[in-house]
Amino acid sequence: MRFEVLILGSSSATPIYGRHPTAQLININEQLYLLDCGEGTQVQLIKYGIRSNRIKHIFISHLHGDHYLGLIGLISSMHLVGRRDELHVYGPPALKEIIELHFLHSQTVLRYPLHIHPTQDRSSELIFESENLAVRSFPLDHRIACTGFRFDEKKRMPAINREKTDAIGIPTDYLPLIKRGNDYTAADGTVYRWQDLTIAPPVPRSYAYCSDTIMTVRYQPFIQQVDLLYHEATFLHEMLDRATETFHTTARQAGQIATEVHAKKLLIGHYSARYKDLKPLLEESKSIFPNCDLALEGNWYRV
Amino acid sequence: MRFEVLILGSSSATPIYGRHPTAQLININEQLYLLDCGEGTQVQLIKYGIRSNRIKHIFISHLHGDHYLGLIGLISSMHLVGRRDELHVYGPPALKEIIELHFLHSQTVLRYPLHIHPTQDRSSELIFESENLAVRSFPLDHRIACTGFRFDEKKRMPAINREKTDAIGIPTDYLPLIKRGNDYTAADGTVYRWQDLTIAPPVPRSYAYCSDTIMTVRYQPFIQQVDLLYHEATFLHEMLDRATETFHTTARQAGQIATEVHAKKLLIGHYSARYKDLKPLLEESKSIFPNCDLALEGNWYRV
Repeated sequence: MRFEVLILGSSSATPIYGRHPTAQLININEQLYLLDCGEGTQVQLIKYGIRSNRIKHIFISHLHGDHYLGLIGLISSMHLVGRRDELHVYGPPALKEIIELHFLHSQTVLRYPLHIHPTQDRSSELIFESENLAVRSFPLDHRIACTGFRFDEKKRMPAINREKTDAIGIPTDYLPLIKRGNDYTAADGTVYRWQDLTIAPPVPRSYAYCSDTIMTVRYQPFIQQVDLLYHEATFLHEMLDRATETFHTTARQAGQIATEVHAKKLLIGHYSARYKDLKPLLEESKSIFPNCDLALEGNWYRV
Repeated sequence: MRFEVLILGSSSATPIYGRHPTAQLININEQLYLLDCGEGTQVQLIKYGIRSNRIKHIFISHLHGDHYLGLIGLISSMHLVGRRDELHVYGPPALKEIIELHFLHSQTVLRYPLHIHPTQDRSSELIFESENLAVRSFPLDHRIACTGFRFDEKKRMPAINREKTDAIGIPTDYLPLIKRGNDYTAADGTVYRWQDLTIAPPVPRSYAYCSDTIMTVRYQPFIQQVDLLYHEATFLHEMLDRATETFHTTARQAGQIATEVHAKKLLIGHYSARYKDLKPLLEESKSIFPNCDLALEGNWYRV
């Protein structure tokens, strides 16, 4: 099953050096989810060949402009290209007021249902669930209310080992029971353990997204042992004072967090406009947590 | 004196084929003015090497997203790069509410003075004046309240013809009076007409900007005899029904309007996403009004 992240925007507040404000697209089994939506996200989607109408859920971490100012334009364009499917947007409570104020004055009546779900930043919360996915918000520590998001694949049922069940002669009707963990007792009294009759499903994967935050222990419980951790790394550690003052993280700290939560892999982004060359940021994170990559626009990262 | 228009965005609502939503930059004697500010305008400014902090006045025609959704990001970025100079924004009354709602929730306190001036769409109004320029808003006919803007150079004083005044021996103290239209009477009683002692100033130039409108006579009085008329031409005339329904103009109609108001030159833009190739739009306008150009992003047009 596909589980990949496309970086649409990797810059912090100022778009510069061809970098755009924050946005990421998640493809899980060909279902598309958008994480944040900085100004210009709709153009980035076009650039990377993504039909925006395939997106059903959009998650906004907080209301700094570089994380959501592309949202109204994207919602409007979906309307203009004839969308009919409902769209779900998750974000801070005031997001609804902001979107509605725009559509009031532009006198736009969307031709598709738009559902805006308020998030809260006091605790972690299950905000979306499907057959194969659970998405939870969790609190980050930024200047204004801000949440991260964690995507967890659900545990799948094991597959039947047909070679074995056929050899034993287990009736087809019984196979769903075995999948659900029941052993099989043959006519001669032999007991076959369900574990021996099935192929274990893949281990569920997880992705956590920490958009804008100062390094604290507050959100660490919610990103434990993720397969891929995206964490902002706005500054080099020599700018720790500036990072602290602006409630951001340094590249070294991002490596520390990845280590402490036992992430498998780290992806850093949200680069300050002061860094044209991103290598020093990567090297700094890697010095603490070697399995680290730069979030680069247009790249897909497998979870 | 320089008087030029840089096209930053030429698309109608949907950004496509590398075209961006509406924005134009006017350079009058090295003073920069921004007309509309669609999503991504700040990136376009960077692309064309314009320092956004040189812009002192921004004029927003109406509150459809493709004409102003880049404004909040631009205002924020000006703040982030340390702007101190005041910024004046002119637009529909609700613009202030929209901007303030964003800054309330992003908890941004701008480090420079931002003055938001409401426009109205009932009549033409002088909204900005400097030593060499007057800007007037005027009503357009669109689905929502919408104004165009007209930039008029002020008539300059004539220059003294020093060769003549020196030959006659006119005292320097008297020259400012001649500039203002006073004749000079020499000691021998000879009267020298001020027109003969001065060099006539250049004829004042004018630019009119008609962003989104259906063709009506309502706004024609306000764009009479402009040197350069920018007029939207969203559709070919074969799409007249669609243009009428959406309160837009066809390329043929743009040519008709330019003819009727005796414009010197016409610039068309705001192209529908259905037109990848813009030549048919240009040909249609030219068939009515030959001195016509396409508004192409990155091009400067002299007024």
